[in-house]
Amino acid sequence: MAKIVRNASVSSIREASEEILKFFGQGGLRHVYTVACGGSKAGLFPMYYLLNAEGKSFHSENITANEFALATPKACDATSLVVAMSAAGGTPETAAAAKKAKECGAYVVTISMKEECPLSENSDFHFVQDPALVSLGGQGLAVRLGFELLRAFDGYGLYQAAADGFEKLDAVTDKARADAEKKAEAWAKEHKDDFICYTMASGANFNVAYTTSICHLMEMEWVHSNSIHSGEYFHGPFEITDEHVPFLIYVSGGRTRALDERALRFLNKYCKEVEVIDAKEYGTEAFGAVEEYLEPMVLGGIGRTYMTKLAEAKKHPFLWRKYMFKEEY
Amino acid sequence: MAKIVRNASVSSIREASEEILKFFGQGGLRHVYTVACGGSKAGLFPMYYLLNAEGKSFHSENITANEFALATPKACDATSLVVAMSAAGGTPETAAAAKKAKECGAYVVTISMKEECPLSENSDFHFVQDPALVSLGGQGLAVRLGFELLRAFDGYGLYQAAADGFEKLDAVTDKARADAEKKAEAWAKEHKDDFICYTMASGANFNVAYTTSICHLMEMEWVHSNSIHSGEYFHGPFEITDEHVPFLIYVSGGRTRALDERALRFLNKYCKEVEVIDAKEYGTEAFGAVEEYLEPMVLGGIGRTYMTKLAEAKKHPFLWRKYMFKEEY
Repeated sequence: MAKIVRNASVSSIREASEEILKFFGQGGLRHVYTVACGGSKAGLFPMYYLLNAEGKSFHSENITANEFALATPKACDATSLVVAMSAAGGTPETAAAAKKAKECGAYVVTISMKEECPLSENSDFHFVQDPALVSLGGQGLAVRLGFELLRAFDGYGLYQAAADGFEKLDAVTDKARADAEKKAEAWAKEHKDDFICYTMASGANFNVAYTTSICHLMEMEWVHSNSIHSGEYFHGPFEITDEHVPFLIYVSGGRTRALDERALRFLNKYCKEVEVIDAKEYGTEAFGAVEEYLEPMVLGGIGRTYMTKLAEAKKHPFLWRKYMFKEEY
Repeated sequence: MAKIVRNASVSSIREASEEILKFFGQGGLRHVYTVACGGSKAGLFPMYYLLNAEGKSFHSENITANEFALATPKACDATSLVVAMSAAGGTPETAAAAKKAKECGAYVVTISMKEECPLSENSDFHFVQDPALVSLGGQGLAVRLGFELLRAFDGYGLYQAAADGFEKLDAVTDKARADAEKKAEAWAKEHKDDFICYTMASGANFNVAYTTSICHLMEMEWVHSNSIHSGEYFHGPFEITDEHVPFLIYVSGGRTRALDERALRFLNKYCKEVEVIDAKEYGTEAFGAVEEYLEPMVLGGIGRTYMTKLAEAKKHPFLWRKYMFKEEY
């Protein structure tokens, strides 16, 4: 099987789905493993979430790449699709996971910004993502591929709604980020000296909070953090709530909104440092029936705006690192 | 279908597995949803992890109960087993999840310490766990049921090894907790005034770290925390590492040990406040081929010993709460 390499586009994502259907045959796909590390793992989370929420004939898992490589699920075989992503395509753990997946007989889709990279060496279908467009960036193309798989294998009814939603995604995200600028700037000024900041979210957005915590706050700005699922907040974490413990909460426009709103009501009562990024204020209802699956990309963009402002307020550029790419690890 | 109620025992767990096989028929079980909140959700994590690692004919998910109730996966139907757990059986979110599961046509197994409780109202097979024995507590019985399902539906080869392992589990855990006492006491004395403590783990142990963070440190001792997957540490979180930022790391004896060891090597170089709970020091090799699936119960027990000592050193009893069961939420 010769490797196919394509730039991300509506038609190449459709082509991948057709290749995958050809490989497995109807009913032959049982498992979809989304594997990556850190921000890229979080980037694949909405695809994983979509497939498990809507899929009937297969299920999905979201596994950190080196755990996948070392403790590969026994079900990963010729009934499995593995989707592996790494921004520059050089992450050794993710490349190792793709290699392991090929050895298991799985069909391997890889996503990075480069055509030639260690990741794409063990790929059946390699995508070069478009970092300039949210809708064809790594996360966007993975979610689109998810909808294609649901259509191809499950006769999924919301396919057209998803296609229409993706048509609007870049414009909605751009507007949302612009609209969020002033609030983000005020928040950053207020919180530039904070030692800790909790994040919260639910549903497909959960890993937007995770990315804000581990990539932006901890990695880039050296701020202590933890991303709490808003459905888990009242089962332990809420006991650390206090007037001056900062929280940043993403509120979904989808089915798990009630969880986020409940956490927010409590926070508003006991905490004076709550920042709310509410999908409903940022136009995600334009996505209609697939709102909850596309909003992570919009909210993620807004989160990035907040963190850019924080970096400016702190005079701590995003690219400063103590250890990453500098020390041995 | 009349509800079956049993005390947890080797034979009643086998009986549940036989009932489940009768309900689905060979090949009919496709999805196993483990649903609960907070510490109970973490308690079901090793069962979920086992099923996904070893299972071939079905897959598993571990979902916080209220997200399951509000955004129920479409695949949850008569091909699905839902396992729901709540210590006292009164957690409203988990009871709602069990109700939703019944409405979807799933087979519902529930686990709590009481025979009559809101959780068991929508159950097909209700277990009364034995809080005095790790091997028949909620987590232990869930993992045992996992092995029974693997045997019944997948002809799983390690079934006998698991049965043998469970024979040793209570003794190994008791000895491990006793052996850890001195280290735990020294650690607690050293760290009683800490503001923050990160935890780390991988594989089936990941939610041992999660429980330590959200139930023990945040809920019971009001210490800020985050549980980091040791495979994710180098992809963001490690930038907050510093000489005096405390870490508590669980090191597995299983296949993901290399991830934990790599994180530990780095911590030992850049951090002076690292506490290690290494499975290899606590006799989990007695479990043989199923070590990694049983060790979460031993390490969780040791974690509890550490946290008991911390509560003593801080003079902050486990049962103090600011909000839980006191305020409206």
